[in-house]
Amino acid sequence: MQEQQLVDAIAKLVIEQLKNVDVYNPEDKIPVGISARHVHLCREDLETLFGKGYQLNKKKDLMGGQFAAQECVTLIGTKLRAIENVRVLGPERSKSQVEISRTDAIKLGLTAPVRLSGDLAGSAPIALVGPKGVVYLKEGCIIAKRHIHMSPADAAKFGVEDKQVVKVRFESGRGGILEDVPIRVDDSFTLEMHIDTDEANGLGIGKDMGILIK
Amino acid sequence: MQEQQLVDAIAKLVIEQLKNVDVYNPEDKIPVGISARHVHLCREDLETLFGKGYQLNKKKDLMGGQFAAQECVTLIGTKLRAIENVRVLGPERSKSQVEISRTDAIKLGLTAPVRLSGDLAGSAPIALVGPKGVVYLKEGCIIAKRHIHMSPADAAKFGVEDKQVVKVRFESGRGGILEDVPIRVDDSFTLEMHIDTDEANGLGIGKDMGILIK
Repeated sequence: MQEQQLVDAIAKLVIEQLKNVDVYNPEDKIPVGISARHVHLCREDLETLFGKGYQLNKKKDLMGGQFAAQECVTLIGTKLRAIENVRVLGPERSKSQVEISRTDAIKLGLTAPVRLSGDLAGSAPIALVGPKGVVYLKEGCIIAKRHIHMSPADAAKFGVEDKQVVKVRFESGRGGILEDVPIRVDDSFTLEMHIDTDEANGLGIGKDMGILIK
Repeated sequence: MQEQQLVDAIAKLVIEQLKNVDVYNPEDKIPVGISARHVHLCREDLETLFGKGYQLNKKKDLMGGQFAAQECVTLIGTKLRAIENVRVLGPERSKSQVEISRTDAIKLGLTAPVRLSGDLAGSAPIALVGPKGVVYLKEGCIIAKRHIHMSPADAAKFGVEDKQVVKVRFESGRGGILEDVPIRVDDSFTLEMHIDTDEANGLGIGKDMGILIK
């Protein structure tokens, strides 16, 4: 081998064999959406909280056909402390789900697990209060697990696949790297990483883009 | 050079020249202290809030001769929203200082800068309410910048020096790497990384140890 080839070959070996190494392309940028605490309701719970036959009123369109409703509820946890004015998201779901930050969970006295949306088995109990009634969920309260939505075209561009777990770096002044970020690929998805307010505030993330690390 | 030496030399070069690479020793562990929002008061402001000649009452000893006092105040920001029961730390300081999380800052409507303790020039204004009076700080409210305290012996052990900026990794299930972490070395310091509640909650850090990355 020529000297340059030898150097290249060894460099490759060194990089492959080194553990705890992150190599990434700063151009692999991911837009970020920050989710504040919110509630998804099933029809039955919506009617208990807001009245028989009630329909949510759209306030603002969100990604993937979801919307922020004008309606809010109050959450009460096991310490009997309340968090007021928690936004309901529509449309209705088959099962009610409350998504809070870990800061909220500590305030409410809940040991809510970090989960992807819909994965509710064994999640925390919580009470919801609306203008027409109250609902006690025996389970349904989670801390949303950060994740990335992308289309098959984006997945091809980044060289990743559905369910792959990656890291994302933020150069936000108070930045860092968030690990353990699963990717979800679907035709209907727009490229966006979803994080919660704790993750955004702890890393000083506002309108910053994340950088994908495979 | 022998072959092994050549490989070592090239490996070193490759590592040095690669950008965006973190190499660390998982044994370089740093204990973590999580700071909740709190207030330091000067004598004058303490007397305004709690009364002439008032002395803080110790509730719990903290690191470096500081203590959590039994006394609390209410903070009010530019949105006229309040955060109640904010702990006062003793002993008194020459200048009052309020340390809140970015989550708190957003709630209060403040654009508090991320700063190391004591660096208050141009920081956010905030109102404090005590049982005997109120104080309006034209500046003094910051979001505490994460940092590591260590003794000269620890610094030697880790191979770092005072004011060096490092990264710290957390394998906390919802973990990641916090960048931009200055080190402060002093004989009086016990080895501890200080982070706030947003950083702890965003990365799921409880009693986890951080791993130093130089």
